[in-house]
Amino acid sequence: MLIEDKKQRNWQPIIKQFEAVLGKNGVIQRREELITYECDGLTSYRQRPALVLLPRTTEKVAEVVKICNQHSIPFIARGSGTGLSGGALPTEDSILIVTSLMRQILNVDLDNQRIVVQPGVINSWVTQTVSGAGFYYAPDPSSQIICSIGGNVAENSGGVHCLKYGVTTNHVLGLKIVTPEGEIINLGGQIPEMPGYDLTGIFVGSEGTLGIATEITLRILKSAESICVLLADFTSVEAAGASVSDIISAGIIPGGMEMMDNISINAVEDVVATNCYPRDATAILLVEIDGLEVEVAENKQRVADICKKNGARNITTASDPETRLKLWKGRKAAFAAAGHLSPDYYVQDGVIPRTQLPYVLQEIEALSQKYGYQIANVFHAGDGNLHPLILFDNSVHGALEKVEEVGGEILKLCVKVGGSISGEHGIGADKKCYMPDMFSAADLETMQWIRQVFNPQGLANPEKMFPTPRTCGEAANAKNMKQFEGVEKF
Amino acid sequence: MLIEDKKQRNWQPIIKQFEAVLGKNGVIQRREELITYECDGLTSYRQRPALVLLPRTTEKVAEVVKICNQHSIPFIARGSGTGLSGGALPTEDSILIVTSLMRQILNVDLDNQRIVVQPGVINSWVTQTVSGAGFYYAPDPSSQIICSIGGNVAENSGGVHCLKYGVTTNHVLGLKIVTPEGEIINLGGQIPEMPGYDLTGIFVGSEGTLGIATEITLRILKSAESICVLLADFTSVEAAGASVSDIISAGIIPGGMEMMDNISINAVEDVVATNCYPRDATAILLVEIDGLEVEVAENKQRVADICKKNGARNITTASDPETRLKLWKGRKAAFAAAGHLSPDYYVQDGVIPRTQLPYVLQEIEALSQKYGYQIANVFHAGDGNLHPLILFDNSVHGALEKVEEVGGEILKLCVKVGGSISGEHGIGADKKCYMPDMFSAADLETMQWIRQVFNPQGLANPEKMFPTPRTCGEAANAKNMKQFEGVEKF
Repeated sequence: MLIEDKKQRNWQPIIKQFEAVLGKNGVIQRREELITYECDGLTSYRQRPALVLLPRTTEKVAEVVKICNQHSIPFIARGSGTGLSGGALPTEDSILIVTSLMRQILNVDLDNQRIVVQPGVINSWVTQTVSGAGFYYAPDPSSQIICSIGGNVAENSGGVHCLKYGVTTNHVLGLKIVTPEGEIINLGGQIPEMPGYDLTGIFVGSEGTLGIATEITLRILKSAESICVLLADFTSVEAAGASVSDIISAGIIPGGMEMMDNISINAVEDVVATNCYPRDATAILLVEIDGLEVEVAENKQRVADICKKNGARNITTASDPETRLKLWKGRKAAFAAAGHLSPDYYVQDGVIPRTQLPYVLQEIEALSQKYGYQIANVFHAGDGNLHPLILFDNSVHGALEKVEEVGGEILKLCVKVGGSISGEHGIGADKKCYMPDMFSAADLETMQWIRQVFNPQGLANPEKMFPTPRTCGEAANAKNMKQFEGVEKF
Repeated sequence: MLIEDKKQRNWQPIIKQFEAVLGKNGVIQRREELITYECDGLTSYRQRPALVLLPRTTEKVAEVVKICNQHSIPFIARGSGTGLSGGALPTEDSILIVTSLMRQILNVDLDNQRIVVQPGVINSWVTQTVSGAGFYYAPDPSSQIICSIGGNVAENSGGVHCLKYGVTTNHVLGLKIVTPEGEIINLGGQIPEMPGYDLTGIFVGSEGTLGIATEITLRILKSAESICVLLADFTSVEAAGASVSDIISAGIIPGGMEMMDNISINAVEDVVATNCYPRDATAILLVEIDGLEVEVAENKQRVADICKKNGARNITTASDPETRLKLWKGRKAAFAAAGHLSPDYYVQDGVIPRTQLPYVLQEIEALSQKYGYQIANVFHAGDGNLHPLILFDNSVHGALEKVEEVGGEILKLCVKVGGSISGEHGIGADKKCYMPDMFSAADLETMQWIRQVFNPQGLANPEKMFPTPRTCGEAANAKNMKQFEGVEKF
């Protein structure tokens, strides 16, 4: 196929083609309207797309993807735009296919505990739809009242409750997707175990590089009979970390187990005044225990005993929904509160083996000292998923670059101790240069070949996830590549 | 590469090459010794391999795979040879790479709940290794005292406890594999969530078509504090099926939930005389409940109440290990006992949505009447994973073909109600012709492309899993293909 020179592209006839499929209202082309779509939750990189398309059905998605193929126009799927790794960042002269009009719940089958949704459906709507019948959808990113299921599938999103219940990939039974060439195919099915290669598993977390999910079959779970939240405060991070390890070693898998450090505690008390988090604590643990009433009662006691044995000063518990919410309030507000500590913050996302927690937190503190930036730690302690928040002032020249360097050092530290460069935010545009720190050239090349199977023209979300998405083989040299080609950097 | 004519192949210099890598003891070539390797657990199809190789390390596997590539010799990995779908069936003039000398436990990391093993390690050895410290490995195929972890990975094996804890793919964190071209690469890692495409997920269940796993990192779980087994007997299959649905709907996820019908009950009582299973019951349910003591006590009562409400005649429970074993004894012996009911039996493996259980069992009974073969039903009721045992006499001319036809009808029934043609035994040689009943031509073609990414020469386990493994596109016509080309059929 003739590759049209994007600089020379005559958009008018192409826009006419898209309007014929989606109507005039389905194609956004005015410069001022396109500004909204310049970035996702990673606001430090921006690029205006050439057009934004708003399809409503699988068939319409397929038709517009085919038109993109006809003209070799790169396209990027976008849900609510809350992603934190720049997965929905446009490339120059690309098209955003936005799923915000694809918000239908297509089928609810409570007997078989599954629900079929369009990709633009908001995460929390799934639980709202089935909660009356005593069910819920487990993966719960912090952004759950605004992020979309399509984005969750692309990024394999996690959340507080993923310690016990697994991340998005553990809850997707099947998918209807539009391939990067515009074909409609089904992956997986209606039941968890299917023969053949696990294409559903490869699609979830593929960050829009293998196509666009247009119908998603999710597993829903029965709500627990009883839930209790326990707050323990510690005078050392080591003691809190040891409690996390001991709780898991005792065979208790809490619904969630979160840690916050002193900086975070004070930030949230300044902003939302929970009056529950002791300002002089070095670290607090929030442990949610769910199950049968008798089970929760017993596990609550065990968790409390473990925390006390490790030196916890105070233990507070809450079982009624209102008090539970109060204990969670600070944790939920932690990222927003960090914004009050300094003009800007950079949130990192890495994973480490649980046993390395005390060592890694020490090393992060050392990086904070070395570079002179405060780092607040708020994270999913149970599964070792760190979220260091590096506080800085973006108006200071060169500060962002320095902070990214600190973020990179933290990721390298995660890899060094046997962890990962992303727990739940994805690689996107932000972390692709760190992929060679984590994977060998052969591993990356294998992934590139998979990408080429689905995405031979490379039009679906180019320049994401891999150091060099266009050709294989080059992956090994990725560290030296020029990053964010064609992207304005603020 | 020049494809040598396999009929004309001069094996002597090739054997010398293999002996240089593995020593004389690592290469089996005598005809009488090769007989053992003619089939796996699917004994109705047999084909003698040209050679059997016994490597001990990843590097040796890589070296012999490279030699296979040099001469374009197809190769098939084999663990203990217990597979039930013919996944380890040799093709003509192929080489079996047998992992029975790769039986080292390479690393045990209890703090992070993981263990690294070679592929020849027997499933039950994993639990034995860590049980002293209070851990176990969850996937437990019936063959667990003899089947190997490598085979479990290839077939994505299930077992009684997979209802609550998931199948093999949910317990494999990372893999070292030798690709079909002899490269050594790592998939996944040491922690559950990794960025990039989920290559570990695609490899697990790929039935030896994407390479050979040589080091496997498994997740191990903390043993439950308390376990109870409950036996309920029913005068109708519908009542037992309704109990299964109601237990799950009540939010109880038993460790295992198995159903046996009247034929199976009498078969096991004839053979192992548990004296626990009432011979006049139409169906029995065996429900294993695990967790904290208080939790087990409460769930036991709830399960009993649900079974009674649905018309269970008697409920027996057992909490001490000895009595529990007694209740399980009949279920564990069910396949063997079926062998006493008739000279031969054919075990099918399909999955249906739980809610379809009564309907599907009725239809299976109708097939039994129509074809005139008794069918015993023993299965993982909780996850809808059926194992109908079709009883027949293989010495009757044409009986096997008829029985395979019945088996095929059952699979089509599973697909019709939204289920799957395999729950845990894999597709192998046995079911590849049913893949087009389950997947569209486009879905199968996508899988073929993935296969070609890993296995471009098609040497790794050819003629398995897909109707036509050699080229894509042809998959759609697969139903008409000549099956088991070059395989003697007894």
